[in-house]
Amino acid sequence: METKDKMKYMKMAIEEARFGIRHKHGGPFGSVIVKDGEIVGYGHNCVLRDNDPTCHGEMMAIRDACCNLGTYDLSGCVLFTTGEPCHMCLCASMWANIEKIYYGCTIKDNGAIGFRDDKFDGIFGGRELLGDFLEPYGRRMCQKLFKEYLEQQHTIY
Amino acid sequence: METKDKMKYMKMAIEEARFGIRHKHGGPFGSVIVKDGEIVGYGHNCVLRDNDPTCHGEMMAIRDACCNLGTYDLSGCVLFTTGEPCHMCLCASMWANIEKIYYGCTIKDNGAIGFRDDKFDGIFGGRELLGDFLEPYGRRMCQKLFKEYLEQQHTIY
Repeated sequence: METKDKMKYMKMAIEEARFGIRHKHGGPFGSVIVKDGEIVGYGHNCVLRDNDPTCHGEMMAIRDACCNLGTYDLSGCVLFTTGEPCHMCLCASMWANIEKIYYGCTIKDNGAIGFRDDKFDGIFGGRELLGDFLEPYGRRMCQKLFKEYLEQQHTIY
Repeated sequence: METKDKMKYMKMAIEEARFGIRHKHGGPFGSVIVKDGEIVGYGHNCVLRDNDPTCHGEMMAIRDACCNLGTYDLSGCVLFTTGEPCHMCLCASMWANIEKIYYGCTIKDNGAIGFRDDKFDGIFGGRELLGDFLEPYGRRMCQKLFKEYLEQQHTIY
């Protein structure tokens, strides 16, 4: 995929996350799913909104894409996400036959803003076996988003 | 937990799975979640019904329990499930703070009836680090359920 397209899709994942944190739906995690140059699914973390620990941004985007495409098989789809996926989202992406994942912030970045991804990563591991499936892209843009989230957490309304 | 209670809850997880396969919602995977001696959530595999690869039985039960209890925190809850959880469901259970999981059939049993759990397990691993969190119970009862599922798959309607 060309850099300008990767940039475009990661920016849309960031916008999706930004919508979620503004509305206090959950953490700063947004995702889009792309197939043949078109966005087929959007999702952001809705753990707080839905009282549902399975509603990570990646999961919401997978569910949205499957609903839009009318299939549980997302072969040929690429996922862009603002934070490196936890093992729930990694395994869900594999069940869905997602072809590739681009992520912005790292598992450690997720940990630094208060999420437990690094704990689970210490248990399960295996990322080193994923090869090209998982590729970093746009960390700096996503770190800016994480900073916005932290600032908002300390704002009194 | 006493054996008679474990037996009772696993039988209910099997009934939940049986409902799902009769209605062709997905694979033979059913779960119940128990808190303080009461069932607070039910779920069965609905991947085919909902065209959604995230709808494993455990995920559906977690979502149901969270909805019923009005929280994303299932601390103090025990999950019974007919098949050993994949990494998506394991990690989801940890995000939900599930206390313990009893499973019937093993990952290999899941593989033997056509599911890819063993492939993902070869990538992520880490079950050996889970200690008491994951405990086998009622495999023989669940193998009977898996057999029913296989027989149904070969039935022409």
